Amino acid sequence: MKKTALIMAGGHGERFWPRSRKNLPKQFLSLTDDGKTLIQLTVERISVLVEKKDIYISTNKDYEDLIREQLPDIPPDNILFEPVGRNTAPCIGMAAEFVSKRYEDAIMMVLPSDHLIKYAKMYQDTLNDACSIAEQGSNLVTIGITPDFPETGYGYIKFDPDNAFERGYNVLNFTEKPKLEVAKEYIASNQYLWNSGMFVWKASSILERFEKLMPDVFEQLTIIRNAIGTSQQTDIIEKIFPEFPSISIDYGIMEKSDNIYTIPGSFGWDDVGSWLAMERIRKTNEFGNIIDGDVITINTNDSIVVGKNKLIACVGVKDLVVVDTDDATLICAKDSTNDIKKIIENLKVCNRNEYL
Amino acid sequence: MKKTALIMAGGHGERFWPRSRKNLPKQFLSLTDDGKTLIQLTVERISVLVEKKDIYISTNKDYEDLIREQLPDIPPDNILFEPVGRNTAPCIGMAAEFVSKRYEDAIMMVLPSDHLIKYAKMYQDTLNDACSIAEQGSNLVTIGITPDFPETGYGYIKFDPDNAFERGYNVLNFTEKPKLEVAKEYIASNQYLWNSGMFVWKASSILERFEKLMPDVFEQLTIIRNAIGTSQQTDIIEKIFPEFPSISIDYGIMEKSDNIYTIPGSFGWDDVGSWLAMERIRKTNEFGNIIDGDVITINTNDSIVVGKNKLIACVGVKDLVVVDTDDATLICAKDSTNDIKKIIENLKVCNRNEYL
Repeated sequence: MKKTALIMAGGHGERFWPRSRKNLPKQFLSLTDDGKTLIQLTVERISVLVEKKDIYISTNKDYEDLIREQLPDIPPDNILFEPVGRNTAPCIGMAAEFVSKRYEDAIMMVLPSDHLIKYAKMYQDTLNDACSIAEQGSNLVTIGITPDFPETGYGYIKFDPDNAFERGYNVLNFTEKPKLEVAKEYIASNQYLWNSGMFVWKASSILERFEKLMPDVFEQLTIIRNAIGTSQQTDIIEKIFPEFPSISIDYGIMEKSDNIYTIPGSFGWDDVGSWLAMERIRKTNEFGNIIDGDVITINTNDSIVVGKNKLIACVGVKDLVVVDTDDATLICAKDSTNDIKKIIENLKVCNRNEYL
Repeated sequence: MKKTALIMAGGHGERFWPRSRKNLPKQFLSLTDDGKTLIQLTVERISVLVEKKDIYISTNKDYEDLIREQLPDIPPDNILFEPVGRNTAPCIGMAAEFVSKRYEDAIMMVLPSDHLIKYAKMYQDTLNDACSIAEQGSNLVTIGITPDFPETGYGYIKFDPDNAFERGYNVLNFTEKPKLEVAKEYIASNQYLWNSGMFVWKASSILERFEKLMPDVFEQLTIIRNAIGTSQQTDIIEKIFPEFPSISIDYGIMEKSDNIYTIPGSFGWDDVGSWLAMERIRKTNEFGNIIDGDVITINTNDSIVVGKNKLIACVGVKDLVVVDTDDATLICAKDSTNDIKKIIENLKVCNRNEYL
């Protein structure tokens, strides 16, 4: 069956401030040694399974130039603009209409644009396994990540180890981000996977679920479908999209559907959730530091220092994240990266939009 | 008796890097709330005792523009240029010739340009007391600082508490920077003061000592004296000065002379020896921070953050010194400020003169 991919690239990551900004979110940043941006790596990885002409990108109008610049091989018509953010369900539903109108039916892989995968081959194998399950009936497949530790920042997928289908397992339920104690129980039970936000299904399977579980949205999606390819397409999307409820695909569809399978993935997944990810994706030097740019360190250990156009000199520091940009410099204790959002709140309150 | 002052402004302070540079040493920086530079404050303080036309500045040619800009009231002829650095003795000897040629004899107060004094009135009173002693005979007076703690970074003056003269005490000897154990003994003995590098004497008294203790230097100084005010002045100084030995006034004269008195000064002296001085000279905020410039702090304590043209955001840090400039940013643990010189060594080795 025809394979297509939808890469979700509408997010404004704030946790990579000051490097990430409203007009340059995380997916458009290069964080790895090879100089490629996260979205470029995502497209590169999936290109092994899906032709470029069948890769769709959902995003918002602000990022059109970035996407065309970073992904010149993606056909402009495949860039689907959300006029406003309405979480993942409306965006995925609309993409399913584009795919289904073009190919009648086809596999759709829904992929975040801002994650990293260490082992591309295993990732592709896992997606292939997912395709195989999704092609049958109206199965919905989600890729779960074998958890390494009781992370409290992710949602979890509970699966039934005794109810396997090919490489997948029947999903019992989805859970919100747990407290630490609960997360520990999840890990110990060997019945939970991290919810990575990667899905595989046929366009027809997910549209069928919209029709059943979100009939109002489905009705609106049909109007969009009829406009696709006509001179009205943009106008109709801009009119209808803002009327959609803001709702995630997990909450709107996955948690309420049957025939949901998860495939446990072990391909070195990293959601690159904060500057600390640099330590997982880059090599530390002999002092435990990650150094990027023009940096001099004296007696400095276990720190992440990302320079830009000026000299950064670190003396006697430990466990620090330093990120320089043209107009702002962050100095953050490693155990406080979650508080970077407080800087952004402060900037918002003070209307300092040039730094957002 | 006529009072003159010599302000020594030839030093290249490295400990305020990256704000201080070879072409902008510490004495030309503003570190206090009032926006005045250290040398401007020095001149302001001494102007109460000495007319502007009688204040001399010794420095090197590189700083001519800075001095003229920062001290427009000092007559250009009073700026004495050292063609090369030869420590304090030759420089002071030459200034004494300028003073003695102009006024036959006069009081000379020799003052560093890069210290801070909290209580100007007490400082002026102390200098007046020193003048009174210096006017008599050929007494040399040095201002000692009542020590607060066993500092190992200063030289000490041992005085005889039983041998007072007016407000001064007879000096028994000068000591080099002591080890901590020794410094503790000094403090406990109540017989030691910190050597502040401030001196008061008549020009004739110090020249008399040069003649006796450094006769070769004295002979050369006489050649300079004869050239002062002639068209040959600059040429002669440029020829002779480099031939002087590099020697401090303490070592060359003070340690070997008789009739040396010290007056204990308690006027809130601070040699502003490193960025940590900011905590003594500026008010800390409720979190123990000294903040200058465009800085946002989240859960940041006991830190010194000096911004320039860009936003500095500190998150979860403690006991840090952060100094931003147009081309370099320093991030230094408070207990490591002595290692800032290692940054400078590194820059020198790498020939990165633009940062020096």
